[in-house]
Amino acid sequence: MSCEVKLIAATADATRVVAAAAKLCYSASRASDLYDGLDADKVKNFLRQLRSVGHMSPFEHASFTFAIDGLSRVASHQLVRHRIASFSQQSQRYVTMGAPCAVVPDEIAKNPEATALFERAANESHAAYERLVAMGVPKEDARFILPHGWETSLVMTMNARELNHFFALRLCRRAQWEIRCLARKMLALVRESSPELFDPTGPSCVAEGRCREAHPCGQPYESVEALLVSDD
Amino acid sequence: MSCEVKLIAATADATRVVAAAAKLCYSASRASDLYDGLDADKVKNFLRQLRSVGHMSPFEHASFTFAIDGLSRVASHQLVRHRIASFSQQSQRYVTMGAPCAVVPDEIAKNPEATALFERAANESHAAYERLVAMGVPKEDARFILPHGWETSLVMTMNARELNHFFALRLCRRAQWEIRCLARKMLALVRESSPELFDPTGPSCVAEGRCREAHPCGQPYESVEALLVSDD
Amino acid sequence: MSCEVKLIAATADATRVVAAAAKLCYSASRASDLYDGLDADKVKNFLRQLRSVGHMSPFEHASFTFAIDGLSRVASHQLVRHRIASFSQQSQRYVTMGAPCAVVPDEIAKNPEATALFERAANESHAAYERLVAMGVPKEDARFILPHGWETSLVMTMNARELNHFFALRLCRRAQWEIRCLARKMLALVRESSPELFDPTGPSCVAEGRCREAHPCGQPYESVEALLVSDD
Amino acid sequence: MSCEVKLIAATADATRVVAAAAKLCYSASRASDLYDGLDADKVKNFLRQLRSVGHMSPFEHASFTFAIDGLSRVASHQLVRHRIASFSQQSQRYVTMGAPCAVVPDEIAKNPEATALFERAANESHAAYERLVAMGVPKEDARFILPHGWETSLVMTMNARELNHFFALRLCRRAQWEIRCLARKMLALVRESSPELFDPTGPSCVAEGRCREAHPCGQPYESVEALLVSDD
Repeated sequence: MSCEVKLIAATADATRVVAAAAKLCYSASRASDLYDGLDADKVKNFLRQLRSVGHMSPFEHASFTFAIDGLSRVASHQLVRHRIASFSQQSQRYVTMGAPCAVVPDEIAKNPEATALFERAANESHAAYERLVAMGVPKEDARFILPHGWETSLVMTMNARELNHFFALRLCRRAQWEIRCLARKMLALVRESSPELFDPTGPSCVAEGRCREAHPCGQPYESVEALLVSDD
Repeated sequence: MSCEVKLIAATADATRVVAAAAKLCYSASRASDLYDGLDADKVKNFLRQLRSVGHMSPFEHASFTFAIDGLSRVASHQLVRHRIASFSQQSQRYVTMGAPCAVVPDEIAKNPEATALFERAANESHAAYERLVAMGVPKEDARFILPHGWETSLVMTMNARELNHFFALRLCRRAQWEIRCLARKMLALVRESSPELFDPTGPSCVAEGRCREAHPCGQPYESVEALLVSDD
Repeated sequence: MSCEVKLIAATADATRVVAAAAKLCYSASRASDLYDGLDADKVKNFLRQLRSVGHMSPFEHASFTFAIDGLSRVASHQLVRHRIASFSQQSQRYVTMGAPCAVVPDEIAKNPEATALFERAANESHAAYERLVAMGVPKEDARFILPHGWETSLVMTMNARELNHFFALRLCRRAQWEIRCLARKMLALVRESSPELFDPTGPSCVAEGRCREAHPCGQPYESVEALLVSDD
Repeated sequence: MSCEVKLIAATADATRVVAAAAKLCYSASRASDLYDGLDADKVKNFLRQLRSVGHMSPFEHASFTFAIDGLSRVASHQLVRHRIASFSQQSQRYVTMGAPCAVVPDEIAKNPEATALFERAANESHAAYERLVAMGVPKEDARFILPHGWETSLVMTMNARELNHFFALRLCRRAQWEIRCLARKMLALVRESSPELFDPTGPSCVAEGRCREAHPCGQPYESVEALLVSDD
C-alpha cells in the first residue's frame, strides 16, 4: 500500500522563468525583456551551468503543488519538518475518521502473520476510537488512540530549489521508505512537467556522482532513471 | 497528564539586546555603543513603544530553548508546523518505545469508563508493537501501530517575535488543549526570564483588549496573569 | 520617474488551488478529488470565510513572479528584507553601469533647482565611476561611488499570503513612497489575475476598516479601488 | 578601512545545548535530563560526528548576535539576502547622515589618484545631500544621491547552522572582499566563544578538503587558522 500523488498546479513555463531570472543577474537587459532570445537550447545550457556553480536561488521562482493521499501520519510528521514549503493537511479535529485506514509498511505486508496482527490491532484501535466518540469524547481527543500509521491527505507546495534539496535527502536509500516512495512519485511528476529543472537531481550518488553519506549503502543509483523505476 | 517544560537556554540579557537593536534603527550611535545609557526604565518604555507601533523585528534577536517531555505526537505534529523555529525530536526510528506511554486527554481521564477503554487499547497497541519487533519487523515500521497520542520529547528554540506569535495563536481558548497547555508553561518560563519581552502577549483578548476570532468564545481572559493560572 | 512592473508568471488557476487546499483541511474527501464541486461562487465565499477567520496558510499555494525595472537600490534594499520571497537581482559586480541612471524622487523632481543639483551630482558620480573603471579599479569596487538611488532590476516571487502581508505594510501612506508605488503596481497586476485572493487587501484602513498605526495619517483609504488610483 | 564587529549576545553554554538536542534524537532519555553525563569530551566527539553525517539541524539551537559598524550599504544589501537571520539596521529615513562617510575599497585605497578621485566625488555627493536637505527635501529622498558605499550599522543574529552556511559561502576567495572581511571577523568571534560549533567551518577547501567551486581560485586555504590570519 502506498501513497497517491498528483501534481495539481505549477508555475506556467517554469523553466523559462528560472532561466530568465538567472540571466538577469549577469546581464544589462531589463527584467521585462528577459525572455528575448531565450530559446530551448539556451535555457537548457544555462540551467546546467547554474547547477554546476551552485547558483540555485533562481530555481525558487518555479513552484509546484501536489495533492497527496494515503500517506501515513508517521510520514506526514516528517514531511512537515521541511520549513521552506507550504502545507494544508486534513484535520483530525474536524474530520471524523470513518473506516479503519492505516498504512501497512511493506516489512509487515510481506509477512502474513505480522499483517494479521497489525490489522487486528488497527481495527481494535479504530473500534476504541468509535466507542470513545459515542461516549461523547470529542474526536480531537478520541484520535489519540488511532494508530500513528493512520492515513492522511495533504496539499503541499514546494519551489524547485527546495524540491532539489528534498530529493537529495529523501531519495537516498538511507531515508525512511514511505517518504522515499512519496519523493519518487513527486520526482516522476515534476520531471514530466519541467525536466530541465531536475536534471540531474536526487541523492549525491546521482546528482554528484559520489556518495556523501557517512555510512554509504553500497548500492549507488546509476541514474535518475534507474532511481525512478527502483522499487526498493 | 500533561507535558513538562524546562527553559534550558536563552539569550543572555535578552531584553537589553532587543532594545539596543531597536534603538539602532533610529539613532546615529554606532552599533557597538548601543548599550550606553540603556537603563532598565528606558528599556521598558522602549519595548512598550515598539510593540504599540508593531515594530516586532528587534524581538527576533532574543532566543529561547525549551526541553519538552511528555507531549503527544498529535501535539508535536501541530507544533512543528511553526516554521520559524528549530526542533530536535526523539526519533522512533532509532529509539525503542519501551513501556506503554500515551498521553490521556482530560476529556477521557475524567470518565473512568473511557479511561479504561483507552488504556486497554493503548496497552494492546503497544503489545502488538512489541510482538512485531520480536518477529523481526524494524521498529520504524512497527511504530505504525502505536497510538498517535504516544509521548515524545523535543528540544525547541524560538525567538521572542515568534513566541509572541505562538502565544497569540496557541493560548486562545479555541486552540487544541494540549498545545495550549504547552504554551502556558512556556509563557510562564519566559515571563520569569525576560518579562518585558512578553508584556502584554497572548491571544487578542489579552494583547489587544478585543477578540479577533470569527467565533469568539465569550470568555476573554482579563490579563496574562489570569491566563497563566487558568486550568481550562 | 517610477518603476515598471510586469507579472511574468503565476500559479495557473490560483484561486481554485487555494480554495481546494483549504477545503481539504475540513473535509473527508481525498486530496485528488478536491476540485469536485468547487464552482466559482463556492470558491469566492470560501476564500472570504478563510480570510475572516485568519486562516491564511492556504494562500501560500499560489505564487506570483514579477519582473521589476527602474527601482532604486534604496528601495531594493528594503524590498529584499522580506524573507518569505525569492529574488534574482542584477549584479553590479558583473554588469557595467552604462549611462547615468538614478531614480529621482518626486520631492526632488517637483523642484527644478533641486533637480538640477541632483542630476549634476549623479552625473559626476557616474563620471567618477567610469574614470575609476578606466584606471583599472574592478567595477564591483568602483560602484561604491554610484548614488544609492541608482536603478536596478529584479525578478521577485511571492506567494499570495506574503503578498497580502506585503500590501498591508507597504501600501500604508506611512510607507516609503517608492516601495508604495511598487506595491500599488503589483496589486493592480495580481487583482487582474486572481481578484479573489486579494479582496480585500492592503493597509488596515482598507482590509480591516480601521487604522492600526500608532500615528494614523488621518487619510484612510476608502477602498482598494481608491488606493489603486491614488497618486500620493 | 573596514568594518568593526562585536559579539554582543550568544546562547549561554551553546555547545552543550546543541549536543544535548542532538543526543535527544537518538536516545531514550528525557529532554530534561539531557545534560546528564555530557562532559566536554563527549560533546566534542558528538559534534564532530553530527557534522560528518550532515546532521546540522541541532546547530540551530545556538544563536549569536553581532553589532556591526562601518559596513558599506553595498555589503549590507548583500548581507540581508540571508533570509535565515534577523537584522536591525540604521535607517536613513530617520537618521541624518552627518559627515561624509563612505567605505573606500582597498583597490581604490592603494592608488592615491583613485583615492583622491573617490573622496572628492564622495564629498560632493554628501554636499549635494546637505543642500537638498537644506532646500526642504526629506532626508529619505536626499539620500538617493549619497554613494552606495556609505557606511551603515546593523545588529544581526544568526544561528550556528546558518553561520556555518554563511562561512562556507562568504569566506571563499571568490566572495566579495567586504563581506569576506566581515565573515572573517565574525568567525574569529564565534570561534572564541564556541569553538566546537565551528570546527571545521568555512569554504569547501577548508571544511571538506576539496574545492567545490566551478572555477577554483587555485589558492585553497590550508586551515581555518590560515584563513583567519589571511588578509587577501
